[in-house]
Amino acid sequence: MKVTRRDLLASAAGAVALSATVQAQTSPTDPTKVRGKPPRANGQRAGGEKLERLVRGATSSGTPHQDLMGIITPSDLHFERHHGGVPEIDPARYSLLIHGMVDRPTIFSLADLKRFPSVSRIHFLECSGNLGRTAGPDTTPGQLAGLTSTSEWTGVRLATLLKEVGVHANAKWLLAEGSDAAVLTRSVPIEKALDDALIAYGQNGEPIRPEQGYPARLFLPGWEGNASVKWLRRIEVSDQPFMTREETSKYTEPFANGTSRMFSFRMDARSLITYPAFPATLQRGWVEINGIAWTGAGKIRRVDITTDGGKTWTAAQLQEPVLSMAHTRFRHLWEWTGGESVIMSRAVDETGYIQPTRAELLKQRGPGTTGYHLNPITGWVVQADGRVLYKEEAWG
Amino acid sequence: MKVTRRDLLASAAGAVALSATVQAQTSPTDPTKVRGKPPRANGQRAGGEKLERLVRGATSSGTPHQDLMGIITPSDLHFERHHGGVPEIDPARYSLLIHGMVDRPTIFSLADLKRFPSVSRIHFLECSGNLGRTAGPDTTPGQLAGLTSTSEWTGVRLATLLKEVGVHANAKWLLAEGSDAAVLTRSVPIEKALDDALIAYGQNGEPIRPEQGYPARLFLPGWEGNASVKWLRRIEVSDQPFMTREETSKYTEPFANGTSRMFSFRMDARSLITYPAFPATLQRGWVEINGIAWTGAGKIRRVDITTDGGKTWTAAQLQEPVLSMAHTRFRHLWEWTGGESVIMSRAVDETGYIQPTRAELLKQRGPGTTGYHLNPITGWVVQADGRVLYKEEAWG
Repeated sequence: MKVTRRDLLASAAGAVALSATVQAQTSPTDPTKVRGKPPRANGQRAGGEKLERLVRGATSSGTPHQDLMGIITPSDLHFERHHGGVPEIDPARYSLLIHGMVDRPTIFSLADLKRFPSVSRIHFLECSGNLGRTAGPDTTPGQLAGLTSTSEWTGVRLATLLKEVGVHANAKWLLAEGSDAAVLTRSVPIEKALDDALIAYGQNGEPIRPEQGYPARLFLPGWEGNASVKWLRRIEVSDQPFMTREETSKYTEPFANGTSRMFSFRMDARSLITYPAFPATLQRGWVEINGIAWTGAGKIRRVDITTDGGKTWTAAQLQEPVLSMAHTRFRHLWEWTGGESVIMSRAVDETGYIQPTRAELLKQRGPGTTGYHLNPITGWVVQADGRVLYKEEAWG
Repeated sequence: MKVTRRDLLASAAGAVALSATVQAQTSPTDPTKVRGKPPRANGQRAGGEKLERLVRGATSSGTPHQDLMGIITPSDLHFERHHGGVPEIDPARYSLLIHGMVDRPTIFSLADLKRFPSVSRIHFLECSGNLGRTAGPDTTPGQLAGLTSTSEWTGVRLATLLKEVGVHANAKWLLAEGSDAAVLTRSVPIEKALDDALIAYGQNGEPIRPEQGYPARLFLPGWEGNASVKWLRRIEVSDQPFMTREETSKYTEPFANGTSRMFSFRMDARSLITYPAFPATLQRGWVEINGIAWTGAGKIRRVDITTDGGKTWTAAQLQEPVLSMAHTRFRHLWEWTGGESVIMSRAVDETGYIQPTRAELLKQRGPGTTGYHLNPITGWVVQADGRVLYKEEAWG
C-alpha cells in the first residue's frame, strides 16, 4: 500500500497503520506540540525502562543479560559479589601497601596511583561460580549466568608498581588483601602480576563503583573474579603461595580421577544466548539469535549455533571488534517456522578450546564436583506456542 | 625504609606512612571491622564522586572530560543538545514511517525495528558547534569541547530498512524528521544511508537515554550530531536535498574566499588534552599528559604533543584498540621541572589530515566564520606555581 505525503499530513497523529506487524495507535499527546524537558546535569533512563540486577541473598547480584545489547555492561548493572558487604572507603584515606620481597616497601595513596602511566582495557570479569542454580523453566539468562560483565577498566599496571618498589628477582607469588569486612586474601603468581594485571581505579570512564572495589582494586584479566581482590589495601610479595582460605577450603575443584585442581584461575570459554530466551515469546518468521561469548584464554574465534538440539551447527556472526578477554556479541539469523526447537550456542576460543557439553563436563569433573568453573553448553527451548523456556535436561 | 610484617600488624590502621608523597592518616573507622552494604538492584557512584554535565542554557549540556578516563562516556554524562527540549515518547506508540521514492511505504514499530538484524558499534558523536565560548583562564576541557561523547550504539542498519521498503534506484537524498517540539529535519545523502547509517535504539548496552533520542534515532557515524536526528519519526526518500532550515539558515559555513560550504557533514580530526587541564594543579616531576582524539574520517593515526608552545612535537601513545570514528585515548609522559609550559595536542587522521592551528583555521574561514566545524589546536598553560589554565592567545 502506497502512502503520499498528503496522506501522511492528513493523519492526525502522523501515523498510518501500514505494516501488518504494527498495531498503530493514535497518540493522545503529540510530542511535537509540547516543549520538552530542559537539559540536566545527569541523565536518567526512560521511565518505563526498568533495568535491574537480580539480587541473590546478601552476597551477590547478577547482570540482566536478557535486557542488554552490545558488549559494554552499564556500570550500575555490573554484577557484584562480596563476602562481607560493600565497604565505605574514604578515597582521601585510601592506601595500598606493597611489601615483602621488594627493595622499597611503599604505601601508595590514590593520588600516587593516578600519577603513574595509565592504561585502559575492555575486559570481562566473571565469578567462578557463574552457573546459577536454576529455578526451572522460567530461568532468565541473568539468572543462569549473570555473574559476568564487561567494562572498560582504567588503572596502572601492577608491573609498573612492582618495578617502582624493586621486586626481587626470586619472587614467585604475591598476596592481595582487601579492606572489606571479609579481609579477602588471594595468592597471585608473579608472572600474571608482571604480565597484564592492573590496579584499576576507573570503570567505563568514571571512578570504579563502590561494589566493584572503590577506590581501587586488583584486576586480573581473564581470571576468576574472586582473585581480582577489591578494595585492595595490601600486596605482599613472596617466593611461595599463601594458601589462603579462599584457595584451600574454597575455589579448589576435585576431579573424577581423584585429583584436585588448585589455583584454577583462568575462566574457560563460554557462551550465552540472551535472545531468544526466557521470558521472550516468539512470533513466526525471522529471528535474530543473539548472545555473548567470552574466554579467559584470549579472543573468541567462533560461536556455533544449533536450532535442532545439537544435530547441526552453524557459525554465528561475531561483532567486530573482537577483543581479547572481553564479551563478544554474536548473532545468527534463524527462521522459526513454528515447531518446538532447542537452540544452543557453543564457543570456540583462539587456542582451539571448545566449550564442553554438560555431559562432557560432568564426566571430567565427577560426582563430587563443586559449582566453580562450570561452563557447559546451555540454551533454550522454543515451544510450539512461541514461549521460550529453560530446560536443563535438554543439554548434553 | 623497610617495613616488616610485624611493623605493619603493629600499626593500628594497617597504614604506615612510607612514601614521601603520602600524607598518611589514621582512619577513624576501620572498614574491615564493619559489615558492608548488601547488594542492590542498581549501583550508584561513590558518594563523594560528583560527576555532572555542564548545563548551558535550555538547549545543551556537555560531557565533563576533565573527570573521565578511557573512551566510553557514561550514558548519564553523554552530552545533550536539542532545539525544543527532550520529548517524552511512549515506546509502545513509537513509529517510524519510511516513504517517498520507495516501493512499499511502511510504518515500523519499535518492536519491528528490533526484529531486524542488529549491529553494535563504538562511535563518537559530536555537535558541529563544539568550540565552547570560553570564560577565560578557568575553562575546563568540558567547557571547551564537551559536546563530543563516545558510546557503543546498537540498532538496525538503515540500509536494511531501505532494502525492506524497496528504495528506488534513482533516489539521492532522504529527509530525517524528529518528533520533538522543534520537529528537527535534515537532508542525508543516500550514499551515507546505505553505507553505515543506523537506526539506533541501544546505547552502552541499554536502551538509548531520553535526551539521546529514546526510543530510536538516526545515527550517522562521524557526521555532525545535528544530522543524526533524534526521536526519529519519518524518513522521506527523494532525488534531491530538502533544503531545511537547519541546513540553510544554519549549519552552513562562509569561507574567506567568498564561497560557502553547505552540507559540511563530516567532523574533522580534533584532539583535547583532558589532563593536565584546568582545574588541575601540578606537582613537579613526571606527569602523564592524557586526552582524547577523534575524526569523522576514520581512525586516528597519530597525536602529537608539544610541551614548549609548539616548538617541538612528539608522538603520544595511542590506547589500543584504535576504533574508527571513536574517541581514541592518548597518553604522553612528561617531566615538568617547574617553569611555565604551554602544552598542546595535534591530531592526525588516517587520511593524513592534520588538525589546524587556530590561525590556519581563521585564515581559511575568514572573519565572517560561524561557530560550526571549528577544530583548532588548543591546549593549556602550566604556570610556574603548577596551576593549569586555559589561554586562548597561546595557540597559533
